[in-house]
Amino acid sequence: MGWVNRRRDHGNLIFLDLRDRFGITQVVLDAELSPEAHAKGEAVRPEYVVAAIGKVRLRGRDVINPKMATGEIEVVAEQLLVLNDAKLAPFSPAEDAIANEEVRLKYRYLDLRRQEMQHNLKLRHDITLAIRQYLSGEGFLEVETPFMTRSTPEGARDYLVPSRVHAGSFYALPQSPQLFKQILMISGLDRYFQIARCFRDEDLRADRQPEFTQIDLEISFPQQESVFAVVEGFLSAAFEVAGTKLTPPFPRMTFDEALRLYGIDKPDLRLPQLTRVNDVFAPGDLETLAVNPALPVVAVRIPAVGELSRKERDDLRLLYPAKLTQQGTKVLDDFKRLEKMFPEAMNKVRELTGAGEQDVLALVAAASTVEATSEPRAPGVLSSRERQIYEAAGAVRLAIAQKYADRHKLFEKKGNSDDYKFLWVTDFPFFEWDEDTKSWTFAHHPFTSPHEDDLKAGRLTSDPGAVRALAYDIVLNGTELGSGSIRIHRQDVQREIFRALGMSDEEAKARFGFFLEALEYGTPPHGGIALGLDRIAMILAGAQSLREVIAFPKTAKAIDLMVDAPTPVSEVQLRDLHIRTVLKN
Amino acid sequence: MGWVNRRRDHGNLIFLDLRDRFGITQVVLDAELSPEAHAKGEAVRPEYVVAAIGKVRLRGRDVINPKMATGEIEVVAEQLLVLNDAKLAPFSPAEDAIANEEVRLKYRYLDLRRQEMQHNLKLRHDITLAIRQYLSGEGFLEVETPFMTRSTPEGARDYLVPSRVHAGSFYALPQSPQLFKQILMISGLDRYFQIARCFRDEDLRADRQPEFTQIDLEISFPQQESVFAVVEGFLSAAFEVAGTKLTPPFPRMTFDEALRLYGIDKPDLRLPQLTRVNDVFAPGDLETLAVNPALPVVAVRIPAVGELSRKERDDLRLLYPAKLTQQGTKVLDDFKRLEKMFPEAMNKVRELTGAGEQDVLALVAAASTVEATSEPRAPGVLSSRERQIYEAAGAVRLAIAQKYADRHKLFEKKGNSDDYKFLWVTDFPFFEWDEDTKSWTFAHHPFTSPHEDDLKAGRLTSDPGAVRALAYDIVLNGTELGSGSIRIHRQDVQREIFRALGMSDEEAKARFGFFLEALEYGTPPHGGIALGLDRIAMILAGAQSLREVIAFPKTAKAIDLMVDAPTPVSEVQLRDLHIRTVLKN
Repeated sequence: MGWVNRRRDHGNLIFLDLRDRFGITQVVLDAELSPEAHAKGEAVRPEYVVAAIGKVRLRGRDVINPKMATGEIEVVAEQLLVLNDAKLAPFSPAEDAIANEEVRLKYRYLDLRRQEMQHNLKLRHDITLAIRQYLSGEGFLEVETPFMTRSTPEGARDYLVPSRVHAGSFYALPQSPQLFKQILMISGLDRYFQIARCFRDEDLRADRQPEFTQIDLEISFPQQESVFAVVEGFLSAAFEVAGTKLTPPFPRMTFDEALRLYGIDKPDLRLPQLTRVNDVFAPGDLETLAVNPALPVVAVRIPAVGELSRKERDDLRLLYPAKLTQQGTKVLDDFKRLEKMFPEAMNKVRELTGAGEQDVLALVAAASTVEATSEPRAPGVLSSRERQIYEAAGAVRLAIAQKYADRHKLFEKKGNSDDYKFLWVTDFPFFEWDEDTKSWTFAHHPFTSPHEDDLKAGRLTSDPGAVRALAYDIVLNGTELGSGSIRIHRQDVQREIFRALGMSDEEAKARFGFFLEALEYGTPPHGGIALGLDRIAMILAGAQSLREVIAFPKTAKAIDLMVDAPTPVSEVQLRDLHIRTVLKN
Repeated sequence: MGWVNRRRDHGNLIFLDLRDRFGITQVVLDAELSPEAHAKGEAVRPEYVVAAIGKVRLRGRDVINPKMATGEIEVVAEQLLVLNDAKLAPFSPAEDAIANEEVRLKYRYLDLRRQEMQHNLKLRHDITLAIRQYLSGEGFLEVETPFMTRSTPEGARDYLVPSRVHAGSFYALPQSPQLFKQILMISGLDRYFQIARCFRDEDLRADRQPEFTQIDLEISFPQQESVFAVVEGFLSAAFEVAGTKLTPPFPRMTFDEALRLYGIDKPDLRLPQLTRVNDVFAPGDLETLAVNPALPVVAVRIPAVGELSRKERDDLRLLYPAKLTQQGTKVLDDFKRLEKMFPEAMNKVRELTGAGEQDVLALVAAASTVEATSEPRAPGVLSSRERQIYEAAGAVRLAIAQKYADRHKLFEKKGNSDDYKFLWVTDFPFFEWDEDTKSWTFAHHPFTSPHEDDLKAGRLTSDPGAVRALAYDIVLNGTELGSGSIRIHRQDVQREIFRALGMSDEEAKARFGFFLEALEYGTPPHGGIALGLDRIAMILAGAQSLREVIAFPKTAKAIDLMVDAPTPVSEVQLRDLHIRTVLKN
């Protein structure tokens, strides 16, 4: 039984390619053997649902189809039952050509019949099950947390649900199960996970869904390394069912190292590192280039791209972030000219960066007009100026790589674990400087723990910018897959943090209410992480969009084109919910 | 590491019962062996979080605690670390006495520390995983369907989510993934399941949750029996991890049989059947009792309850549904009197019902004033009058049983599969008579298929009340666990059904829009079912309320007492969503 994928009419013989979830099988309707089945076959059209009853036989040698898994056999039908007919579809699931996405989403049931989508949904099922089995084996309990709840402190906009029973009150759909999973640790659950739907009413970007799925977990009495090991374990299990053997542990790198080596907090390890090259220059050289020698001069290398023409360099410049120039950062990308000016120094740059003949090199540095700041900082922590330059170098590195990725197959898959460069980035800054309010603000959610050392050294007050968080990201090929932290479990520390942010106890209570109370009743040390399941499935499917691995996704405008949602509702419904719409704008 | 469950101070020796998810271990703090640990132990209080470092040793013979899994050993602490302190809790997770439910829900994190709740959440995890593994092994794919969608045709009230991007429009939270799972069959997914959260804004009853979890599945090209086999399989898997071996197949019974034998469509097979006893009476007997002999006289037997006093019978009558008397149904529960009046007949009743000395017997019948209707009916189908009498007998049966269940241990667990009497009820009526509109209406959701035989016999128009649906319920001990059906997959049948309901094509389109269109593009025969996971977990946990197996349930008023939801929200949030609250009634 299945769908008619194609139908070929050869007079006395009609061939039906019958399709189901498991593949395609050829059915032969022979007018001589079974005139009735053949007659029915004449009326059959693509996407009809039919049942064929008959014998499986080997095909003749000359009509074996080696490209087809079932290409050596066929079913000779004795009976054909037409279980259902089908209107002419707006596009055919049998064709390789793909309809435009709007049509695909409107007729999702036709789109999902395509082998690629069937494969993607099967893959998603397989990896989700593998993750569940792995975590269950490690003693994690999956616990369902509420969908109708109240605002959580992620900071994005909430989706709200008006209450009928409680006039004027609203539930919020959870942006994540963050507080619930911490409550579960306070409840003594020890190890929790959930494949959890999350909801964020954010401003819409191309590849973002208003509802998305996270692999969410939390551990009591953990070290960072316990969280890492669990994640490495379930990712290995997931990648294994998708055919790739990973080799954990993944490399670890601090936020600071990541910035120095890659100019970004989510490095793509498939590309070469940055190199600080101040030392290759003779005194006075950098002044000649109108570059501040007290700040880093960073070499960017991209392999195998070949020498760039002036035009190509000009085009690239349009891809660099605009703020580079505003900040006074210079990109010296005419390496030939640099080599003419400083042959010896540039030789050393080639050496230090390991650049081959075909590699592109550029230098990123601060203009001599830029002053090096001297903020109070813990030893080795980058100043904000230094950070700007590394970030600029990182942006240049990615711009060149992405521009030439296709032409030079920079990211071509080899079909092994080298295709997947995982990385843990640790020790993120605890606070962020808010230029608007001229004050420090949370860089993470407000229950992230600072480093014990930084607490003891009094940096919460003496040097907030140098305080490191026990926060970590898991990065794959330059994409952040997930983010987590060790949480604050002590009320006294929590209060100290709020004070460092200039928040009074009353304010904290108003914002984080019941959770602060819960912390006081015997909270164990705990920490966890959440990873995007949709993104992992997308990467493993080799897809370019999350919509390829979500059965019924929404458009960038948050519309479900198939069911047509959202829609206006009746006055009665609104009245029941004690709300009225306000449409004047 | 864990929580201090109890602390006993014996001077130089302090004993801490340390509790975690896996149990309780005794830690000894000996002032002589480790003065420092002992000193810290003096300050420790219940629910403090501590870590003890030390040696495990066998307890002395005389202090072995055989009631404790770890009662033969103890940990002699060399160090004690207080990881966190704890305020005096409003109730102690270590006590057997249970706080009132409001307090339990407000301090859910304390309540969840209780061993019973830890057990329930672990059990729920285990059975959910077992179900997932079973279904995955049977070729089912778990597919996540949207939570922000549009109204589905379940007929309960929707929870709505206002859209920010599309002013005046709303998403609905799904009452079930019904249409999506049918769409997945139309998409060729073949076998789908999902452990799916569902949302219904219904009027609140004691043990109902606004969000609840279903085991939802759908199969292409099924027979009813294929659905039954799958459900029997996953239930067996779930019950097995909970320690009970089931022995499928479960019995099957039609709706009509269920009414005749148990007076209800969800029979509790742990109690005896009803018996029609018209034939035991001599001519004229029933007239003496002012009972209509043309309608069923039904004997109800409840075992082991003993003879009831007049007072007890009067009390019981208060428990019978009020409509009994309105409908003219008589409950003859003074069996002693009946035996005096008709000794021979009542002897036969004892014989037919298999009643022992201690069993309660009663007769249920229609008063002689009640007329037997003669509706057009297929042979063997109960008339509405007959149905009323059987339903009354069923209600009397349950009222007596429930009233005396505890005293006479009617439902006492034996610890084997006899504790769980499963049953499939099939062949439900397709239509229901709506007294208000005086017309036939859907008894199920509108895509449930009627019996082919009834279609062919033209009963859709000639005798709608006799049309049977390919709908089935799975019943356990008198509780409906789940409900499903074979669906209509042919547009022509669908149209015929809508017409039988007096619905025009335009009306049908307006109500069921995109789904009717999808049906036209090659829909396979399909069917499925959904079972309540919460209820299954509750039964296996031996709990009396769904709230015992849901980590963060809501009250009967749909309030989350812990996080305090729902709540009012800011004017800004409302403005963003283009709505305003209307608080005047």
